[in-house]
Amino acid sequence: MYDKDKIDLIVKQVVDNVKNANSGNISLSLALALTEKVKQKASEMGVKAVIAVADAGANTISLQSMDGAYIASADIAVNKAFTVVSLKMPTKNLASLAAPGGSLYGIQFTNGGKIVIFGGGVPLYSKDGRIIGGIGISGGSADQDTALGDYAAEIFKTLI
Amino acid sequence: MYDKDKIDLIVKQVVDNVKNANSGNISLSLALALTEKVKQKASEMGVKAVIAVADAGANTISLQSMDGAYIASADIAVNKAFTVVSLKMPTKNLASLAAPGGSLYGIQFTNGGKIVIFGGGVPLYSKDGRIIGGIGISGGSADQDTALGDYAAEIFKTLI
Amino acid sequence: MYDKDKIDLIVKQVVDNVKNANSGNISLSLALALTEKVKQKASEMGVKAVIAVADAGANTISLQSMDGAYIASADIAVNKAFTVVSLKMPTKNLASLAAPGGSLYGIQFTNGGKIVIFGGGVPLYSKDGRIIGGIGISGGSADQDTALGDYAAEIFKTLI
Amino acid sequence: MYDKDKIDLIVKQVVDNVKNANSGNISLSLALALTEKVKQKASEMGVKAVIAVADAGANTISLQSMDGAYIASADIAVNKAFTVVSLKMPTKNLASLAAPGGSLYGIQFTNGGKIVIFGGGVPLYSKDGRIIGGIGISGGSADQDTALGDYAAEIFKTLI
Repeated sequence: MYDKDKIDLIVKQVVDNVKNANSGNISLSLALALTEKVKQKASEMGVKAVIAVADAGANTISLQSMDGAYIASADIAVNKAFTVVSLKMPTKNLASLAAPGGSLYGIQFTNGGKIVIFGGGVPLYSKDGRIIGGIGISGGSADQDTALGDYAAEIFKTLI
Repeated sequence: MYDKDKIDLIVKQVVDNVKNANSGNISLSLALALTEKVKQKASEMGVKAVIAVADAGANTISLQSMDGAYIASADIAVNKAFTVVSLKMPTKNLASLAAPGGSLYGIQFTNGGKIVIFGGGVPLYSKDGRIIGGIGISGGSADQDTALGDYAAEIFKTLI
Repeated sequence: MYDKDKIDLIVKQVVDNVKNANSGNISLSLALALTEKVKQKASEMGVKAVIAVADAGANTISLQSMDGAYIASADIAVNKAFTVVSLKMPTKNLASLAAPGGSLYGIQFTNGGKIVIFGGGVPLYSKDGRIIGGIGISGGSADQDTALGDYAAEIFKTLI
Repeated sequence: MYDKDKIDLIVKQVVDNVKNANSGNISLSLALALTEKVKQKASEMGVKAVIAVADAGANTISLQSMDGAYIASADIAVNKAFTVVSLKMPTKNLASLAAPGGSLYGIQFTNGGKIVIFGGGVPLYSKDGRIIGGIGISGGSADQDTALGDYAAEIFKTLI
């Protein structure tokens, strides 16, 4: 007799793998779930944030501006999300790299003003370690935005 | 003796008026509720839409791109939301006005490419008739986007 | 004896000529006086207009947005003022010239979106017929903007 | 009997509150009164300034360029007014934050070149402490522009 449980397990693994293989791009529902978590955290910190999520093509798929957030934060959040996908690193890593004297000094001028070089943007990884999107958060101090970015990276692992 | 109930009623009406006066800008939660309704309708119609909401200052406060939507639709939806707030009319009204021979032919070139002149964008009104924001929808045919815009205008009345 | 009246007249003419020679550029005070007149007229017509004045270099020196005017009208008014100085003709003249089939079709794409091709912009002339600036008006229908532009051109003659 | 005077007082206070609640946006007449004051001050200081005022949505509602002002100052003044509304702080505060090594280094590149990081722009507050607009002044040295900005913030309190 065949072992039904074993076969079920194999099927499940295959389905999961297929799902995983298909998950080259973050879904809108996943972006919204992540945004919800970040909004809750921002509220706890007293920050009125704008949260943008880009997909693997660095295109914005979600943006939410909390009531009373800075108007300027919308562009900044979108650009942080663009930056982390298009350069495959958190925006905070660029602060020193893009400073005068840094190895990437000038990168902030190369992409039509879309590269942000201070904290608050983090890439979003699939379970198998590929970048499937990015999140950009703007609205607090640089430290607060960076903390919210780090939080987003951590909490995202529990959502996928 | 004065009629306490009467005064209470007057106070309540005044307070409501004050609240109403304060509602000069759409809130994020209202934008999200409206977006949810439009997404449901778009799904029913088989349209993968991008839905953008702008506030009374024509600044984007919410954007959602349904899975598989056109990449170009993000800019179009944002610009439709900008257009309806900044020109105080549905984008479909501009189609004839801005056509060659129309009285506003050329308006589509005057604001840095942010004026959209086909359907899918509608202003959002407060209960007392002021524009508190706008929604821009892009992703289907012009007819589908226009239908979704009209739907958004109608359903918004039930949300405020 | 010298003829005091004659000398006075000569002095006056010289002073006028100097003033005229100096008036290669519209002054801010003249721009504001003209704007005030146009605002009054717009109010009478029930139009909430944005009025922009450019100098002989086509650079904006004055802008006023009447309360409740279209947000989009600011860029349009500025661009109308730019257009009339930089092309030395009223914007309404461009409507047919820049239409498909017109001799200048395409001019609306050549200057970064700053050429406006419907009414509401008119050049402003010195007494000796030189263009010393331009005004751009936006906020009403195309007909209303055109009427306000024509009014501005007429009333300006009484101000200089 | 009810105390008519007391009720009248309460009604007056409520009405004042309503008026206050409605003052979410600076009016054009208020912007012009403030601009007049700043022009007088600039004249006294020997500065040929451009003065721009933005509303609560960061859209320009007034611009005046004093005769002989720098052409570049028009964009700078407009962008300063945009900056203070969209980031809710005087532009002089950004000087250190956005300098190399500062926590917001790079913010001057994130919003299409519209963020100005030296003095001369200040937010404008309603009596109840909300930002209802912003003013941007450009034309003198950084110190002069900053002084004019500080003056504008102070004098505005006497105008509302």
